[in-house]
Amino acid sequence: MLVLVSYDVSFEEPDGKRRLRKIAKVCENFGQRVQYSVFECVVEPAQWVQLRHRLLEAYDEERDSLRFYFLGKNWQRRVEQHGSGTAYDPETDALIL
Amino acid sequence: MLVLVSYDVSFEEPDGKRRLRKIAKVCENFGQRVQYSVFECVVEPAQWVQLRHRLLEAYDEERDSLRFYFLGKNWQRRVEQHGSGTAYDPETDALIL
Repeated sequence: MLVLVSYDVSFEEPDGKRRLRKIAKVCENFGQRVQYSVFECVVEPAQWVQLRHRLLEAYDEERDSLRFYFLGKNWQRRVEQHGSGTAYDPETDALIL
Repeated sequence: MLVLVSYDVSFEEPDGKRRLRKIAKVCENFGQRVQYSVFECVVEPAQWVQLRHRLLEAYDEERDSLRFYFLGKNWQRRVEQHGSGTAYDPETDALIL
């Protein structure tokens, strides 16, 4: 299934940048960055449990915003992309990571 | 239906900030900003045609990235939110806009 992960990290404190790097690293283990703060992750349910757990550990619930959108197995018909950025298929690209 | 709109706007040129303001304004006519560059818009199909048209007019296809995610009518079960930011129901909040 495809899970879209989007996050806003506060930069008001020095720790913000550290958390941003950590969250990006966690996401990149499971998916691909499609925008600065948006990742598309193709995961099996067990992988999602692990990814979700890591993200919730990494973010600051007082300062950051973390949102998950579940686009299911037939996610291709639910996504439309325009402009710059690499067009890619996360189903296949995920194998390369 | 809920359409998630996410965008990355290039700030490399002075026009980037202008486009950001314009895109934000277009989105806010139809939905609610949930993160810095992410909007949740509850729209009927005819409204979506209009919103999509305006967004594609406002962005720079060479420099910006614009992505749409279609979460359907039963979108509530497809969204999970953590951390800061207002918890809201776009179905009802959209009526206020």
